[in-house]
Amino acid sequence: MLLLDLISKLGGEAQGEVSQPLVGVGTIENAAANCITFLANPRYRTALATSSAGAVIVGLKDVEVTDKPRIVAANPYAYFARVAQLFNPARGVVAGIHSSAVIHAGAWIAPTAEIAEFVSVGRGAIIGEGARVGAGCIIGENTVIGAGSALSARVTIYADCRIGERVIVHSGVVIGADGFGFAPDNGQWIKIPQTGRVIIGDDCELGANTTVDRGAMDDTTIGNGVKIDNQVQVGHNCTIGDHTVISGCVGIAGSTHIGRHVMIGGAASIIGHLHICDDAIISATTFVTKSITEPGTYTSGIPHMTHRDWLKNTVHIRNLDRLAKALKNSGEK
Amino acid sequence: MLLLDLISKLGGEAQGEVSQPLVGVGTIENAAANCITFLANPRYRTALATSSAGAVIVGLKDVEVTDKPRIVAANPYAYFARVAQLFNPARGVVAGIHSSAVIHAGAWIAPTAEIAEFVSVGRGAIIGEGARVGAGCIIGENTVIGAGSALSARVTIYADCRIGERVIVHSGVVIGADGFGFAPDNGQWIKIPQTGRVIIGDDCELGANTTVDRGAMDDTTIGNGVKIDNQVQVGHNCTIGDHTVISGCVGIAGSTHIGRHVMIGGAASIIGHLHICDDAIISATTFVTKSITEPGTYTSGIPHMTHRDWLKNTVHIRNLDRLAKALKNSGEK
Amino acid sequence: MLLLDLISKLGGEAQGEVSQPLVGVGTIENAAANCITFLANPRYRTALATSSAGAVIVGLKDVEVTDKPRIVAANPYAYFARVAQLFNPARGVVAGIHSSAVIHAGAWIAPTAEIAEFVSVGRGAIIGEGARVGAGCIIGENTVIGAGSALSARVTIYADCRIGERVIVHSGVVIGADGFGFAPDNGQWIKIPQTGRVIIGDDCELGANTTVDRGAMDDTTIGNGVKIDNQVQVGHNCTIGDHTVISGCVGIAGSTHIGRHVMIGGAASIIGHLHICDDAIISATTFVTKSITEPGTYTSGIPHMTHRDWLKNTVHIRNLDRLAKALKNSGEK
Repeated sequence: MLLLDLISKLGGEAQGEVSQPLVGVGTIENAAANCITFLANPRYRTALATSSAGAVIVGLKDVEVTDKPRIVAANPYAYFARVAQLFNPARGVVAGIHSSAVIHAGAWIAPTAEIAEFVSVGRGAIIGEGARVGAGCIIGENTVIGAGSALSARVTIYADCRIGERVIVHSGVVIGADGFGFAPDNGQWIKIPQTGRVIIGDDCELGANTTVDRGAMDDTTIGNGVKIDNQVQVGHNCTIGDHTVISGCVGIAGSTHIGRHVMIGGAASIIGHLHICDDAIISATTFVTKSITEPGTYTSGIPHMTHRDWLKNTVHIRNLDRLAKALKNSGEK
Repeated sequence: MLLLDLISKLGGEAQGEVSQPLVGVGTIENAAANCITFLANPRYRTALATSSAGAVIVGLKDVEVTDKPRIVAANPYAYFARVAQLFNPARGVVAGIHSSAVIHAGAWIAPTAEIAEFVSVGRGAIIGEGARVGAGCIIGENTVIGAGSALSARVTIYADCRIGERVIVHSGVVIGADGFGFAPDNGQWIKIPQTGRVIIGDDCELGANTTVDRGAMDDTTIGNGVKIDNQVQVGHNCTIGDHTVISGCVGIAGSTHIGRHVMIGGAASIIGHLHICDDAIISATTFVTKSITEPGTYTSGIPHMTHRDWLKNTVHIRNLDRLAKALKNSGEK
Repeated sequence: MLLLDLISKLGGEAQGEVSQPLVGVGTIENAAANCITFLANPRYRTALATSSAGAVIVGLKDVEVTDKPRIVAANPYAYFARVAQLFNPARGVVAGIHSSAVIHAGAWIAPTAEIAEFVSVGRGAIIGEGARVGAGCIIGENTVIGAGSALSARVTIYADCRIGERVIVHSGVVIGADGFGFAPDNGQWIKIPQTGRVIIGDDCELGANTTVDRGAMDDTTIGNGVKIDNQVQVGHNCTIGDHTVISGCVGIAGSTHIGRHVMIGGAASIIGHLHICDDAIISATTFVTKSITEPGTYTSGIPHMTHRDWLKNTVHIRNLDRLAKALKNSGEK
């Protein structure tokens, strides 16, 4: 592919040798002479000077930073992502149903869909055009997988769920298992049937071993363009707004409503029945205990220190109240 | 089903129109006119006044709160759970073994059990009467699944484990993988064979992608009526008492013994070799570092604050000891 | 097996009745008279006096602690681990490919390897001599599984990954799923193709439901002898040095480099793009926010307290800065 070809497909403006042939992408440090890289962070300007990359995508302010053949784009990182997609297209869909798959007679598989080995598709389920269902996936009754979605191997989707179009689901994901709902009764726990569904919008991605529980009576819903990393737990009856991103190991308890364009850092924990407003940012490991009503960044993690310092300092956390009172008394003296 | 039918099956006392026909359950907010709801929390009394629900389950103190056809029960929430079960019976078991399943000749499958597609059952394993083993489950050698238990798709149970009766296991659960046991030797780690089992009692539920490791030499044991949410990790040689509930993302290190009727909030972490007494309550995200010998609630999570406040405050945690000493000095002056 | 046999296989020095016949291992508390136990911690000397164990492995300082037939070893715990391995050999490999497995014509399976039921092996994949691939495993195109490695049931390894020799992988593990990489663009997220691989060395172990993401452009690499517990998340482009151990529920964000012989406690969280030096020890639940350049122990978890104390104390954390300033003012008065 020539630099010119990229421009013609993705827009932007070329500078320098537009017929530079390119075979792939790379980082500033490791891109080969036949690869294109990008400069989004001014800190890497110096590194670019010594980069072997054959071409570079730069922002409007960096047009003159290099003599390399280059593409000028308003958002060089996003442009780079699209270039990388061009050089690394998702594995194509091979239409057809593997002979080992068990497809209920009452399911509908689009003729352009791919169903791999050891897949089970239940009665009334629908697999959309161009969708790919990887080996060992289990699709419950009446569940709908939208057109162009791609399930990696070993995904389970329980009955009655709806997955939008172009959704990517990684291996080990479980969608639609029962939410955690029990009524206490004389020291025992009576199960409350979880009769809601999971509804996921278009263009989402769910990382490996993530779980999204079905609603108790209403549904659990995830909007469009939501990106969820690995090992995230979404409790029953949660709603997650469009284009929100959730990093790995996050836990969200039931009935919490998360807005649009929210960013949640890794291993954060959010208790149930909260509202998190649009555009909120929650730092890694933060424990969210109340609703968040103003955009902004919220944090509570305690950074590491040497164990010696920790031993000295942490003992006072258990005594902060006494410390504060002593201070108050000392001030009154 | 008529209101009267519910009373005749579940007890309680009817008030108002006992021949009210009902087709399902709902929340106070969303129940339709042909559905029954419940009132357990006094805060919802007002909402009940405007609810469309055709009937309601109320406690003894709320008999006069509404004119709707109603059932008076000592524990309206538990009563509601049972009503919801009546309206939403668990999917029936279809006795038989799918032709794709691989059942070792030395395994025993009860004639009333259901074995779905792509299931593997090892030598000497026993699947009890009315048990259901979902698609893609792998049951190890000599493992016993009790009568009436239901394994969702893609559950792994290693060899030699015992699952009680009426246990519900969700997709992605792994029971009986090796515990994490290694002896250090000259900078390397020598594996200690994990030869214990996992023993799970009756009426338990394990959520999606939860893991319970087998014991090192003795067993890991879970009592009766224990409810475990998604993505929980139970280390080797733990014991968990009857009717304990564990919310999502909790991690319990090895050889910790947890009593009966304990409640553990989401994302709590419990270190190994502790004893947690009966009826203890551990709040979400709490880090349990010592044994708990008195019932009560235990907590350590730091609630979120704005990142700006966090930057100002957290720096002092690293200096609490100096702060405390300065206070002491100032008091002595 | 006689005590003498152990000595002849594993070295060490015998004391007492060397022809003592033994059938297995046990703890000091539960070992039967025909079993061997070990004494590594001086605290258990008293317990040994009343132990039923027929023999014991002791350190050089404990030769005279007991009259039991005994083996004297420099490292009694590691010696015990090796004895336990002798008594409990790993389940043998049964060479052959189950008839239900789907093996691409372009894959190569060593004649001594075992491929269980419902396994899928993609084009160009290589399964080494004596390797075992458990039921329901999915091995992607061009992935290599080294000789003697053992994959439990339901493991997914995506395309192009390399697993070393004698690696143990537990059920539910996902290796090589896409890392979490997106470029923001006008409020949406553009996927960056994850074209790196996962490379795992020899003699590693990965616990149930652990996930290791493939690199974005470069690889994610795990060295030799690394032991990872259950439900651990390793982000894209991480590197983990030889003989490092990682306990359950740990999350490591992308591009973090962890040295050799590091020990990471359960539920610790490590942010991305850090360097953790060799021999660092990170306590359970610690939040690592900066690179660690000196060996030693690092900690930040807050231990539990009663909820009542927590209510009193934690309020001050949100006001620590004011407290500190008040103290400063009081000192200046």
